[in-house]
Formats: sequence, C-alpha cells, structure tokens
Amino acid sequence: MPYVNIKITKEGATAEQKDRLIRGVTRLLADVLGKNPETTVVVIDEVETDNWGIGGEPVTALRRKEKEELNG
Amino acid sequence: MPYVNIKITKEGATAEQKDRLIRGVTRLLADVLGKNPETTVVVIDEVETDNWGIGGEPVTALRRKEKEELNG
Amino acid sequence: MPYVNIKITKEGATAEQKDRLIRGVTRLLADVLGKNPETTVVVIDEVETDNWGIGGEPVTALRRKEKEELNG
Amino acid sequence: MPYVNIKITKEGATAEQKDRLIRGVTRLLADVLGKNPETTVVVIDEVETDNWGIGGEPVTALRRKEKEELNG
Amino acid sequence: MPYVNIKITKEGATAEQKDRLIRGVTRLLADVLGKNPETTVVVIDEVETDNWGIGGEPVTALRRKEKEELNG
Amino acid sequence: MPYVNIKITKEGATAEQKDRLIRGVTRLLADVLGKNPETTVVVIDEVETDNWGIGGEPVTALRRKEKEELNG
Repeated sequence: MPYVNIKITKEGATAEQKDRLIRGVTRLLADVLGKNPETTVVVIDEVETDNWGIGGEPVTALRRKEKEELNG
Repeated sequence: MPYVNIKITKEGATAEQKDRLIRGVTRLLADVLGKNPETTVVVIDEVETDNWGIGGEPVTALRRKEKEELNG
Repeated sequence: MPYVNIKITKEGATAEQKDRLIRGVTRLLADVLGKNPETTVVVIDEVETDNWGIGGEPVTALRRKEKEELNG
Repeated sequence: MPYVNIKITKEGATAEQKDRLIRGVTRLLADVLGKNPETTVVVIDEVETDNWGIGGEPVTALRRKEKEELNG
Repeated sequence: MPYVNIKITKEGATAEQKDRLIRGVTRLLADVLGKNPETTVVVIDEVETDNWGIGGEPVTALRRKEKEELNG
Repeated sequence: MPYVNIKITKEGATAEQKDRLIRGVTRLLADVLGKNPETTVVVIDEVETDNWGIGGEPVTALRRKEKEELNG
C-alpha cells in the first residue's frame, strides 16, 4: 500500500532503468517494512532541466557550466 | 481552500472526463466538509505508463500481459 | 490504481468525514474513468493553519480576522 | 536541504522567469530560515489548463469565459 | 539531486527501519542512474490510518476487519 | 492560483518565520509571473529529522555528527 514518488531530471532515463527503479523500491519496502509488493505504487516524474533548481540555479545552467569546464 | 492532486496513468482521459473529476471532487469537499468551492484547487497529473509501477512492474508491462491474455 | 492526495487545513475533520471523502473520491474515479476501486489510494493531509497560506497570509491570521469581524 | 514544489498552469512561463522563481525561493529560504542555498531544491510543475481546476471548473473554461467577456 | 517521497501508514516504523529506507533508495538511484548520493533527498511521510484509504475504505477499518477475522 | 509546497525539517521554525515564507513566496509569484496573490496557496510541511534523508543518512544522524564535531 505504500506510495513512492521519485523525481529526477529528464535526462534520458530509459524504460529499462525506470523498470529497475520500480522493482528496486518495491522490493526495498517489502524487505524493510514487510509491505505487500502487490499494492505498492511507484510514480516517477521526469522534470525538464529548466524546471529543476539546485543551489539557486536551474539545472540547465549547471549542465552548461559543466560542459564549458570540460571543454575549457 | 483545499488542494487535491489526482494522479492517473496517461491512457486517454478526455477533457470532458477531467472536467467531471474536477467538478466531482470540488462538490464532494463542499458536501462533506463545507469547503468553499470557489477556492478549491484540483490538479490532475497524467503519468506515462512506463513511469507508473504497481506490484513491482511498470504499467506498460501489465498492459502488454493483459493484451496477450486476451489474445492468447 | 489512481493515487489521490487531499490537503485540507487541520480544523477538526472527523474520522467519519474522512471516510466519506475516501469513499466519494474512489467512487468518482470508478464512475468517470472506470478505475478499479480496489487499488485506488487516497491520502488525506491535515495541515496546521500556521502552515497553510492563502492570499499571502497564514490561515491562522484569516481565522482570527473572521472571528473579530463576527464579534466586532 | 529544503525542497520546494511550485505548481503553475502551463501558460507560457519563460526559462528566464523560471530562473527567477528558483533564485527567489532559494534566497527566501536562506533569508528567513538560514537554509543553505547549495542544497535547496526547487521543482516547477507546469500543468495543462485542462488538468487544473479552480471553483469546480478547468482553467481552460475560465480562460474562454474571460476572453468572451473581453470580446463581448 | 533526485527527490524521493515515500508515503506509508503510521504503524510503528522504527528510526532504524527508516534509516534503511533512506540508505536503500539513495543507493538504488546511484546504482541505476548514477545519481550522486550526496544530493539525493528522501522524505518519508507517515500517515494516520484514518487518513489513508484503499479500496474506498480507511486503513483503520481494514485493520479492524483483519483483527476480527483473526479472532473470529 | 499557483500552489506551492515547501518542505523543511522540523527544527523549530516559528509562526512568524512561516508567515514570512508564505508572504515572500506569494509576492515572488506575483512579481515574476503576475499571479494573483488572492488565490496563491502555500503549504509548509515540517518533517521529523528521522524522516528526512540526505546523502543516504537521516538528518538526525547528521545533526548528531555536527554536534560531536563541535564538541570534539
């Protein structure tokens, strides 16, 4: 019956990776708390990098800086 | 003033159906708790079936199995 | 399989009223979208009036003003 | 370490405006509560007007009425 | 940078169990998506059984029925 | 009409500080996006330090370490 919401930036997670997240979280809740996997719900939100901020900046800007440093 | 968030899988809900959800939830909160409909907010999130897990599996996989059973 | 989160201010909703909200939202999703009631999850959050703001003010302040107007 | 989720209707907010929201909320949490900006996370959700209800109606319908009144 | 919200019913999860959930989810996101554990945020909400509905009923009612069946 | 949810650890934020958060976020949304303050909703969740994880650890453990370092 648990409900889990995972928010990540939209940067190319594949269906197979999301499958592994769903599987892994569901198993974790069964292992740690004995929760029934059948009714465990997992929802993954993939958020545009313009819409995710950390350290007061959109991730779009962080990624640009990282690239410039690599290329610089 | 209540805030309601409805999460469903993205499987073709129409604008008319979403209208009925908004209307119905707003009326329910007025009926049961006397909440003012004017300030009741309802947000519907439609989630890709790859991003929704139940029973440790993405809904995409469940839908495929359901189809195979029907066709099998 | 839908997940619904209802946020209201913590101002004395009874267990019976919350039961009616759960029942009503679950039926609405079955009626409008044909969702299976067995796996519909509803979570109600009751939020302290100090922690809920509308119009730039905590509800605590609004309630105080409403009372003053009634008594004034 | 705070986590902030801002939900707005999808009606054309620009990357620059979202940048200002992220910057502003992060600074506010530092100013008011001394929270470390480096680990403050802000996530902005832009919601289709069909999926946002207020006063028991989708915003799509409200916008149409507003337009009709202007033109009427 | 991922943000994970785990909602469970408030039925006695210990600090040690919640520690294992936090640890496990953080490791999963590093393993599957290469996410930096240092900035992964996990928030656990424990919800009163009166406030959690499944199958159109509060968990409080379900627990009572389970008990009656065991005792019956 | 925007809805903002601020999650912070429960570590003694006062009613006055929460009032300033509500006021500040509401003004920010009016300034940046022209949103009507009257219908802007802000909900603050204060989360127990056992229930908030960062870097794979509950904040309770981080706070203990910080204290030990200060005292050590």
